[in-house]
Amino acid sequence: MTSEGFVLHERLAADCLTVGDLPLCRVLLMNDARFPWLILVPRRPDIREVFELEGGDQAALFAETTLTGQRLLNLCGGEKLNFAALGNQVPQLHMHVISRRSDDPAWPAPIWGVGEAEPYPADERDDILATLRATLGLS
Amino acid sequence: MTSEGFVLHERLAADCLTVGDLPLCRVLLMNDARFPWLILVPRRPDIREVFELEGGDQAALFAETTLTGQRLLNLCGGEKLNFAALGNQVPQLHMHVISRRSDDPAWPAPIWGVGEAEPYPADERDDILATLRATLGLS
Repeated sequence: MTSEGFVLHERLAADCLTVGDLPLCRVLLMNDARFPWLILVPRRPDIREVFELEGGDQAALFAETTLTGQRLLNLCGGEKLNFAALGNQVPQLHMHVISRRSDDPAWPAPIWGVGEAEPYPADERDDILATLRATLGLS
Repeated sequence: MTSEGFVLHERLAADCLTVGDLPLCRVLLMNDARFPWLILVPRRPDIREVFELEGGDQAALFAETTLTGQRLLNLCGGEKLNFAALGNQVPQLHMHVISRRSDDPAWPAPIWGVGEAEPYPADERDDILATLRATLGLS
């Protein structure tokens, strides 16, 4: 499979900043400074469920999710990773990877639907994205 | 690795019915008839994060999660799978696998923290568990 025909869903494009591309997934940063919250989107067209991916892509999605999560947790000094593939509102398959802390504003509940997003300050975004790219080994 | 030393967390034991064991994971049914909601728990001691599992166990967890989800969705006529590993309250690594429908009582929000669980009627549990075991290929 190739990424031909892949177009990022407009809602993800609107809500997130782009970090870069792993071999399978586009890595996005949710533009919400309250939580270290990445989203991995397999660059394959018309996929809603993990089981719709080819076997090698399924394995790659989970390997990229696990490694990204571990690196994000270490970077942020997080206490617990949260992973989820929900997609009830945005049908394009995407994996949430969130580094949680017991002093974050949603703990111990999940983060979805809690309060309002707080966008990253415009003048800090380049530095944050550069740190994430270095942490995740993205050029 | 073996399952020696694995003990199911008491909160999962209290909230769920036991379906059976896949090669890696114990499969539980959340005792909440509002949602078709399985929980997969790798039978390994002292694991909180996916990256703490050995590589082969990581792959097995995701393969079992994906196949279980697909079969649950088909069984229930669901519209969307939700997968998640959260663990903010129960530290033992466990994967939620939920078959969602647009007419379920939480849609389109995630299900955690929505209302109160509605336990399965005691006289229906054996049949439900037998159906799940057959669907998942568990003896």
